[in-house]
Amino acid sequence: MSYQNPVFIPGPTNIPEVIRKACDMPTIDHRSPAFARIFKPAVAGVKTVLGTREGEVILFPSTGTGGWEAAITNTLSPGDTVLVGRFGMFSHRWIDLCQRHGLNVQIIETPWGEGAPLAAIEAALAADASHRIRAVLSTHNETATGVRSDIAGIRRAMERTRHPAMLFVDGVSSIGSMPFEMDRWGVDIAVAGSQKGFMLPAGLAILGLSPRALAAMETATLPRTFFDFRDMQKSYAGGGYPYTPAAGLINGLATAVEMLQDEGLENVYARHHRIAEGVRRAVAAWGMRPCAASPELYSDTVTAVVVPEGFNGTDIVTLAAQKYGMAFGVGLGEVAGKVFRIGHLGSLTDAMMLSGLATAEMCMADLGYPITLGSGVAAAQDYYRKTAGIAAKAAA
Amino acid sequence: MSYQNPVFIPGPTNIPEVIRKACDMPTIDHRSPAFARIFKPAVAGVKTVLGTREGEVILFPSTGTGGWEAAITNTLSPGDTVLVGRFGMFSHRWIDLCQRHGLNVQIIETPWGEGAPLAAIEAALAADASHRIRAVLSTHNETATGVRSDIAGIRRAMERTRHPAMLFVDGVSSIGSMPFEMDRWGVDIAVAGSQKGFMLPAGLAILGLSPRALAAMETATLPRTFFDFRDMQKSYAGGGYPYTPAAGLINGLATAVEMLQDEGLENVYARHHRIAEGVRRAVAAWGMRPCAASPELYSDTVTAVVVPEGFNGTDIVTLAAQKYGMAFGVGLGEVAGKVFRIGHLGSLTDAMMLSGLATAEMCMADLGYPITLGSGVAAAQDYYRKTAGIAAKAAA
Amino acid sequence: MSYQNPVFIPGPTNIPEVIRKACDMPTIDHRSPAFARIFKPAVAGVKTVLGTREGEVILFPSTGTGGWEAAITNTLSPGDTVLVGRFGMFSHRWIDLCQRHGLNVQIIETPWGEGAPLAAIEAALAADASHRIRAVLSTHNETATGVRSDIAGIRRAMERTRHPAMLFVDGVSSIGSMPFEMDRWGVDIAVAGSQKGFMLPAGLAILGLSPRALAAMETATLPRTFFDFRDMQKSYAGGGYPYTPAAGLINGLATAVEMLQDEGLENVYARHHRIAEGVRRAVAAWGMRPCAASPELYSDTVTAVVVPEGFNGTDIVTLAAQKYGMAFGVGLGEVAGKVFRIGHLGSLTDAMMLSGLATAEMCMADLGYPITLGSGVAAAQDYYRKTAGIAAKAAA
Amino acid sequence: MSYQNPVFIPGPTNIPEVIRKACDMPTIDHRSPAFARIFKPAVAGVKTVLGTREGEVILFPSTGTGGWEAAITNTLSPGDTVLVGRFGMFSHRWIDLCQRHGLNVQIIETPWGEGAPLAAIEAALAADASHRIRAVLSTHNETATGVRSDIAGIRRAMERTRHPAMLFVDGVSSIGSMPFEMDRWGVDIAVAGSQKGFMLPAGLAILGLSPRALAAMETATLPRTFFDFRDMQKSYAGGGYPYTPAAGLINGLATAVEMLQDEGLENVYARHHRIAEGVRRAVAAWGMRPCAASPELYSDTVTAVVVPEGFNGTDIVTLAAQKYGMAFGVGLGEVAGKVFRIGHLGSLTDAMMLSGLATAEMCMADLGYPITLGSGVAAAQDYYRKTAGIAAKAAA
Repeated sequence: MSYQNPVFIPGPTNIPEVIRKACDMPTIDHRSPAFARIFKPAVAGVKTVLGTREGEVILFPSTGTGGWEAAITNTLSPGDTVLVGRFGMFSHRWIDLCQRHGLNVQIIETPWGEGAPLAAIEAALAADASHRIRAVLSTHNETATGVRSDIAGIRRAMERTRHPAMLFVDGVSSIGSMPFEMDRWGVDIAVAGSQKGFMLPAGLAILGLSPRALAAMETATLPRTFFDFRDMQKSYAGGGYPYTPAAGLINGLATAVEMLQDEGLENVYARHHRIAEGVRRAVAAWGMRPCAASPELYSDTVTAVVVPEGFNGTDIVTLAAQKYGMAFGVGLGEVAGKVFRIGHLGSLTDAMMLSGLATAEMCMADLGYPITLGSGVAAAQDYYRKTAGIAAKAAA
Repeated sequence: MSYQNPVFIPGPTNIPEVIRKACDMPTIDHRSPAFARIFKPAVAGVKTVLGTREGEVILFPSTGTGGWEAAITNTLSPGDTVLVGRFGMFSHRWIDLCQRHGLNVQIIETPWGEGAPLAAIEAALAADASHRIRAVLSTHNETATGVRSDIAGIRRAMERTRHPAMLFVDGVSSIGSMPFEMDRWGVDIAVAGSQKGFMLPAGLAILGLSPRALAAMETATLPRTFFDFRDMQKSYAGGGYPYTPAAGLINGLATAVEMLQDEGLENVYARHHRIAEGVRRAVAAWGMRPCAASPELYSDTVTAVVVPEGFNGTDIVTLAAQKYGMAFGVGLGEVAGKVFRIGHLGSLTDAMMLSGLATAEMCMADLGYPITLGSGVAAAQDYYRKTAGIAAKAAA
Repeated sequence: MSYQNPVFIPGPTNIPEVIRKACDMPTIDHRSPAFARIFKPAVAGVKTVLGTREGEVILFPSTGTGGWEAAITNTLSPGDTVLVGRFGMFSHRWIDLCQRHGLNVQIIETPWGEGAPLAAIEAALAADASHRIRAVLSTHNETATGVRSDIAGIRRAMERTRHPAMLFVDGVSSIGSMPFEMDRWGVDIAVAGSQKGFMLPAGLAILGLSPRALAAMETATLPRTFFDFRDMQKSYAGGGYPYTPAAGLINGLATAVEMLQDEGLENVYARHHRIAEGVRRAVAAWGMRPCAASPELYSDTVTAVVVPEGFNGTDIVTLAAQKYGMAFGVGLGEVAGKVFRIGHLGSLTDAMMLSGLATAEMCMADLGYPITLGSGVAAAQDYYRKTAGIAAKAAA
Repeated sequence: MSYQNPVFIPGPTNIPEVIRKACDMPTIDHRSPAFARIFKPAVAGVKTVLGTREGEVILFPSTGTGGWEAAITNTLSPGDTVLVGRFGMFSHRWIDLCQRHGLNVQIIETPWGEGAPLAAIEAALAADASHRIRAVLSTHNETATGVRSDIAGIRRAMERTRHPAMLFVDGVSSIGSMPFEMDRWGVDIAVAGSQKGFMLPAGLAILGLSPRALAAMETATLPRTFFDFRDMQKSYAGGGYPYTPAAGLINGLATAVEMLQDEGLENVYARHHRIAEGVRRAVAAWGMRPCAASPELYSDTVTAVVVPEGFNGTDIVTLAAQKYGMAFGVGLGEVAGKVFRIGHLGSLTDAMMLSGLATAEMCMADLGYPITLGSGVAAAQDYYRKTAGIAAKAAA
């Protein structure tokens, strides 16, 4: 850990200095007003990042997986039907979670590399005349394939079919890094985690809840206590928490949202897009392509790079870790071996990103890939230097 | 937060310097061997602290409440019967959790200030000829009243009645501070949290699981995903984790167990006893008494001090916070107002404890209590100076 | 270092959380504007603390001893005469430094426990018709004896004798904790260190320089390079530094002066006075007395407690460290063994101070002193609880 | 400071995580045994890094400049003659310091880009039949030009001429990064700073002193107090310090030397050489050259890159800071504008270095330099990937 490179995994992300220091907090009495002084701005800031004025925010000392579970158990009952497209590891896992909780999961199988299957979703909703579908679930940014889905498009499909289902979105690897508009998109539950765009250590599940979602908790019969929204709401009203909160992480979250707002969310998104686009230029220069099927699907937080036939993407990741002390992501599930993943979200500069690209090139050269050293770096450099104003503004 | 006193709440506790630094870790790739290097010693160390060789340890990015839920959902099925004594806020909350999860909770109401009702438990077990009781649940150290229960005694009652129920113990505010013997006491699930005797920030539920508890998970039908032992077991086998772990806290836990072992668990317990006994001497010098009904019930981690008639214990806590910037605990539930609580666990010295006692005295004098300033301090000083060798050894 | 008490030495002092974090800064390029952004507010804040508008502030990566040397070498020439009262270890050391640099030191021997000998100084100045005395040197707060001297009185003596000498003041253990009025008192050089009232680690010598002192550097011929004011002035003009600065400490200093100003200097001084007065009440309750000869000399940052005949004050310090892990100060020089010293400056609360007093009592009891446990604590408690508004305000 | 790149200035260097945490230490009583427990291993470790068994190590809360001053004032007297080659900014500054202290400095003017002028030194020594030259001074690694001098060669010249002068070496930017053999080379005083190869913040002057240098202090008459070796020696003998030490930095130094020894000094030097050689390959690929006149002079800690006619190297540094948030070093003195400097010492990986090279390339492209983006990166990548075993070993 001594001479340490930044990580290029798609989360947890590199933690900025000020956030690390905010998290590293001495013990406070969480039943005192000192807690409310950090909790309230954290919650208020998250609402801004989620793009919601109407919704509420609830924080659990947990992770994104816990956030998924909380979304389900607080709003649904055993046997309820949910509609989900499966097009990557994280949509798959959410499906599995629903099934374990006794939900009836209507799955739309979708090729990995595609995004949420809008047409099929619309068709399914249209076919559901009796409105048995209680919720449509979608991953916003599928971390396994580097694919961004069109959440607004799902809402439009729901509107066109006049379907009353709720819309639950896994925004774990997008929120805080890519535009997210909870109110405008009609998202009923947005699930985020601390360790991606919020640039914190793992340990907080962050949920945005629409009034409809909150209403649903009154009738939901799936059992829950740790993840019960009702206890949270009751405690929050008094500036409190139903059990011991992760005070340091919440303090860090307050700092993170302040950082994001100081930079300006539009600038944050532009910064992520710029870093990501440089990565994509590098990938193209290598003669390779993202796993995402088409440009409008490209994620600005992670790129799954499809490796040439005859190569195993996992080898790059292993070699990078062992030989160069650098962390990339392996391919998961259906694309295991077929891709390696470059995370480019959170606290990153263009210069850091170039070190990641340069290291990936060294690994590929080491493994006999037909690439020219420096080629991807040069493509990214060319793009970065022509677009550097955004970075400069962000770092100021 | 600038000129900060230690806290004297019964958790979260003061965090030692080295543990804070261990928790404040830069981002690592939790899928790399770097994670296993911190995870394995943390888990191994926890086993020692729990007093188990046969059991396994599972860590969730959660809190003690989550640990309770995990204990239940992984081993029981809706409608199962559990036997619990209610004698404080935390036994009450666990009961509530069980009820929300559809268990049939056989409650033995017990006066607050008493410990686990051994005779009534034994009678209930004896009466349960059909062995409908699947588990006996008990709080080891009831944080609301400062009462330690006799867990070995529960096991003996189970043995005498030859009852096959499992024994689940909430050791959140005892483990790491007071003797705990999971194997010897026949505990099937021990639940701890990071923020008490382990001296870490809140954010980890720590569970010790006996082979029987692990076997029970095969048939348990309560739904769970985030808290699923099966996923944990599967991942741990490969040095991994089923979702993003709280790596910094786990690193801190590895450090904490190393600290506890370096000091020697016997010395850790002796240190807690010594600090606690000084507090009790002070309480006696004030002409007051602990809420715990008798000396063998006295907790070495928290003392709930019964205030005289006509006074409200909560006022001491409020005044201490506002006037002296010091945190004590209020009375909860049935003893709200009747007690105030002094936490004395984790990272504390005798000198720190004296500052807590001296501040409590100032508050009581401010509020018109019939006490003499310095009286409790003197009683504690007298005890501490005659027993100081233990502290010196611990701090060395 | 695990279970750590605050220190009660008269410096270095306990470092507040926020200052520690400000000091712990990643590397910056000290030739970039980033350095000026921390340097300028630090310097501006120090001027406020010193009470100067006319003067300049210079910071060296050094200590108070280095500050003394810089004061001398930048303004004087070999053979120059300086007038100094010797009444403690730190005035003694400054005298020694002057002698080693070839100055002619006119020493007024003064009993330890007294402050600067105003009458003798005035007599010496009056006798110096030819104005051979180039500077009068005085320790403001003699850390060895806990004595505060009347610097304004020295200036008045200089005015009454119309003597043109400069006035150099060692304010290492007073500045930032006790009132200091550089301009109003006509101080030409004020020397401070980072590790006392500024609550930082040791490592910065902090000097305030009047226009006269700056003018003197033009003709001073004592050799100096590292400590040369001229290089500093030249570099500061461009926002730079003549060599590598201690950037983290300067960042911490910027934070420290911001803290002091946020609290309000008057409140800072009142807080120190209140903590100190509680200590003195305790000392009186023990039947002992401060080394300082009379109340107007009492220091608000350190109390040297005279121990009874037949006892050695150093034993208290040794025992406190070994048995209770607590640091007090030993007697130095002429009062070695005759006193022990309690530091009460910087980041301290009343509650912390009570832990120090309680520990001192335990040590004295252990050593057979004729004191009653709790007696000093009670006297301090009584005073603190009646005056607690100031602390509350400070900690808010 | 939020999204921060590593620095590529030739010091202060990037501080490893563990060293930052070691420096960030709570206040200890430096008169207690706790101080000796950190001080002794720090001093012992420095001796190993300096390559001395016979010598002693003295640490001042100061910087390299203070170290130079201490070297001179403790061993020489006004009017003494020293022999120095001037071939860069840091040899120039040391000369200036000597002159300010009244020494007779015999200067050998040497082109910048050359190293210590061995032949001229030998000639001067040979000509000094009366042995008026008391010390030969040399910069080991001239940070301004990126030139390493042959210190062993100077000693050989002294031996060949049988000249009894002492040999003082400025190793500020070499020690801990490049081989240094104090005993074998017959160095009498070696001067280092904390903020280069030791990877600490600035704030410590680190000196190695031969028995001859220590003997010289008995007769030296230059005035000194803060920097007096005698006070240091006296205090060290008892595990103490003559004034308040920079305890946190010393704790960090203990950690730094432990890190260097754990890695193995040979590996540390090989790591620096490898990183440096990659930089030089990049420079060559750009069609440019180091300022150092010939390969045997190449520094492994800093490369001063000569920019083409018509360009101003300072512009690269300014642009890198403003546009890319990255710090390089400007040319100083005679080579101002003619070079820009890339620091490559301390805590750096090959991947980090590539980000520095890539950023330099972007700046050069922005400024119209005739270079191809990615060209230098590719040359460095090629070298790094073929030599990566060393890095892997170091990071393990």
